[in-house]
Amino acid sequence: MTIRVAVLGAAGRMGATTCEAIEAAPDLDLVARLDAGDDVAALAGQADVAVDFTLPDATEANVHALLDAGVHAVVGTTGWDDHAIDRVREHAARTPGVGVLIAPNFALSAVLAMRFAAVAAPLFASVEVVEMHHPHKVDAPSGTAIHTARGIAQARADAGVGAMKDATQTDPRGARGADYDGVRVHALRLEGLVAHEQIFLTNPGELLTIRTDTFDRSSYMPGVLLAVRQVGSHPGVSVGLDSFVDL
Amino acid sequence: MTIRVAVLGAAGRMGATTCEAIEAAPDLDLVARLDAGDDVAALAGQADVAVDFTLPDATEANVHALLDAGVHAVVGTTGWDDHAIDRVREHAARTPGVGVLIAPNFALSAVLAMRFAAVAAPLFASVEVVEMHHPHKVDAPSGTAIHTARGIAQARADAGVGAMKDATQTDPRGARGADYDGVRVHALRLEGLVAHEQIFLTNPGELLTIRTDTFDRSSYMPGVLLAVRQVGSHPGVSVGLDSFVDL
Amino acid sequence: MTIRVAVLGAAGRMGATTCEAIEAAPDLDLVARLDAGDDVAALAGQADVAVDFTLPDATEANVHALLDAGVHAVVGTTGWDDHAIDRVREHAARTPGVGVLIAPNFALSAVLAMRFAAVAAPLFASVEVVEMHHPHKVDAPSGTAIHTARGIAQARADAGVGAMKDATQTDPRGARGADYDGVRVHALRLEGLVAHEQIFLTNPGELLTIRTDTFDRSSYMPGVLLAVRQVGSHPGVSVGLDSFVDL
Amino acid sequence: MTIRVAVLGAAGRMGATTCEAIEAAPDLDLVARLDAGDDVAALAGQADVAVDFTLPDATEANVHALLDAGVHAVVGTTGWDDHAIDRVREHAARTPGVGVLIAPNFALSAVLAMRFAAVAAPLFASVEVVEMHHPHKVDAPSGTAIHTARGIAQARADAGVGAMKDATQTDPRGARGADYDGVRVHALRLEGLVAHEQIFLTNPGELLTIRTDTFDRSSYMPGVLLAVRQVGSHPGVSVGLDSFVDL
Repeated sequence: MTIRVAVLGAAGRMGATTCEAIEAAPDLDLVARLDAGDDVAALAGQADVAVDFTLPDATEANVHALLDAGVHAVVGTTGWDDHAIDRVREHAARTPGVGVLIAPNFALSAVLAMRFAAVAAPLFASVEVVEMHHPHKVDAPSGTAIHTARGIAQARADAGVGAMKDATQTDPRGARGADYDGVRVHALRLEGLVAHEQIFLTNPGELLTIRTDTFDRSSYMPGVLLAVRQVGSHPGVSVGLDSFVDL
Repeated sequence: MTIRVAVLGAAGRMGATTCEAIEAAPDLDLVARLDAGDDVAALAGQADVAVDFTLPDATEANVHALLDAGVHAVVGTTGWDDHAIDRVREHAARTPGVGVLIAPNFALSAVLAMRFAAVAAPLFASVEVVEMHHPHKVDAPSGTAIHTARGIAQARADAGVGAMKDATQTDPRGARGADYDGVRVHALRLEGLVAHEQIFLTNPGELLTIRTDTFDRSSYMPGVLLAVRQVGSHPGVSVGLDSFVDL
Repeated sequence: MTIRVAVLGAAGRMGATTCEAIEAAPDLDLVARLDAGDDVAALAGQADVAVDFTLPDATEANVHALLDAGVHAVVGTTGWDDHAIDRVREHAARTPGVGVLIAPNFALSAVLAMRFAAVAAPLFASVEVVEMHHPHKVDAPSGTAIHTARGIAQARADAGVGAMKDATQTDPRGARGADYDGVRVHALRLEGLVAHEQIFLTNPGELLTIRTDTFDRSSYMPGVLLAVRQVGSHPGVSVGLDSFVDL
Repeated sequence: MTIRVAVLGAAGRMGATTCEAIEAAPDLDLVARLDAGDDVAALAGQADVAVDFTLPDATEANVHALLDAGVHAVVGTTGWDDHAIDRVREHAARTPGVGVLIAPNFALSAVLAMRFAAVAAPLFASVEVVEMHHPHKVDAPSGTAIHTARGIAQARADAGVGAMKDATQTDPRGARGADYDGVRVHALRLEGLVAHEQIFLTNPGELLTIRTDTFDRSSYMPGVLLAVRQVGSHPGVSVGLDSFVDL
């Protein structure tokens, strides 16, 4: 059965690429392209799934409107904080059967890297995250890196592993980077790069490195389509495409 | 309950390190240290598990003797080929309840790398393996690299993924490396290194790299102890410590 | 003073990109675009420098014609062997003042990597080269990797450093890769990649890695323009853009 | 001619390794082992060169005493700031012919990495530095990483290259790391590692990575001996072993 898909932010770079990918997929039907000012509520009964690649200040309102309209949502827009996600969770509890996926990254290599990092993290003494992006990015660190760090921290907490060792006493200019739930995150900004992440995990005598390099936006589409196909089977709010990937 | 452990090849480098690690573990009891000429059959009823770090030309006979003695075997000695493993499988079928683990590598980072590579392999267009060891090693590629390549090939076959693309027409000196079940393996020999492996997985626009660096023999001990503790719960023949690690 | 430049193979992918780059450079004047069938000899007196991005079976004849025409040549076409280069050297000896640069790679990162590798090589016990390209490439290893290996071998020979240690006795499927003047070269073919090279240099206790990743053809243009500007000051035959880069 | 060498901090880990290396070198003669409380002034006329592996709060006084004694100094102790170096420079100006080398790192791979980074830096749009050390280190970032960043900044300034692009507007927890003369430095602390550094250099379409991994203290000795042999030919104060390495 064909899935009817609407794209929000259809005129943007990611939105346009998504429209092309949906049109090329035989099991998906592109039924609407919306941009700023268009009425999301009108999608009720017209679309099964909506993909949101809009802007940080528009995306939350879109998702609430989609929940009210009974349309599953796949959200690739960045800038979500915990409070916004909590508000969507509360709303979703009152619209049973509707699925929302908020995903900071749709590249399969990045999604697998996050998942592998979380699985491995409790077995290692130390874990840190380094992300690299182009220098036009306005926020640091990336949403993917924060999500990776939190997944690592959660897995270690669940396994009862204690805090990592760190004897640093003097670090006058902040070289040790950002602390997210006890996991250090470092952000590099380098002209010509797209999106890259390395996770370093060590024990005495060994180093495991998981690295993902994304050179091109086209690498996101297999993950977006996977999300569109599966979001209907995951009612409620999911964060991160890794929750849809079966390891 | 304490597990009674014997070490075969106790005077060798890996055997000696294993003896130390077992003596330091409160739940394990080192009951015998055997070397060339000692009687393996005498372990019957004396040891629950035997760890074999002997030599390629002795290890198969040791495992057959352990099966006859009803002692579980953890085998770290390299040099096992498919025929030798098949002979042990046939023998093990006649000694129900006895477990044998033949593991080319006990470093957790290496074991996880192999497992992650197999999980990810069907989702990528191309996968190749590069291993790096010290130049005193007499065989190429390493047993770990062959095991990694075969795990990748098996996972792709199970998922129905076709052969990888390769347009190479001229390669006069063999730069494309070794083919193991359709997966290319490359071996580097570099003074000062211990044991290192990289797995490269790509799709259009993205590269996932899984890398493991082992600097020191001490990194094997957590894996050896994990194997000693679990081999009794895995009757029959297992190949690769990854089969004991729960992802 | 403006340099008058002709492009051979102007309709090809690299040729077209070169034409654009030359037109955008204020100190260069694009005076001719030639393709198969056009007369190279006619460039005499019309062009100062010609850039050749044609085909392996056409490039040598082009260079001989350019030497006869007294036009400096910057050659990016691959497929040159030692005999072809020797024939050009002999010809160039009879056309004093004309410069020919045959360069397997114009990416600055790749050129620097080759040069750094050669400088460092005599100080390390072991050195090997790994290159990665897309799987549509028909030859292995890449010209850049061969050039890198030969530069390493020459630097070690000049410094009186002996052969590298390698105890390999069994390598049934050729995992040790290709031998170029005693330096091992390994070639990977991975969908989605462009052109990548790693050089590993080791001593007891340390590993130096020089890695270059080229994601996009645009990265070659700064090197092509540098070559166009300098080839006139390097009469005779030069191989590799690194011979023009001042460290 | 044999060089007479004294070691200050001879009972420490690095000092002891240095004593062994000097005793093993046929052209060097170990004439004194000093520790806290011993009289440095007494080396006058007895030693040609002194190697200082003492403590941050002792090393500057040692160097002043060595200058007064007319003994060349090779200083591996960390913790030197610009003011301390300036005081030594002033003192050295009054003791002509005496050489002082203050080196944050003696591993040849690290020294070459710093030098290569400085040479390449003006040719790239963006450059950042990532260092990784064991988590028992009390200062961040490492002296080597600061030295690397400053070498990069100096080379770019000398070449008239402008500031790097960085559009970061929000970075609430400091993921962008430390700024040294406009070059970002990131410090990771990972159990089991020794000393590692990566320099990332990018242009549109290309990434050059220079990486050094030091697994073992023994890797410093070739650099220490090189310094001992050459410090007498470099009167005045030199900072960084790279100033002694001829590229």
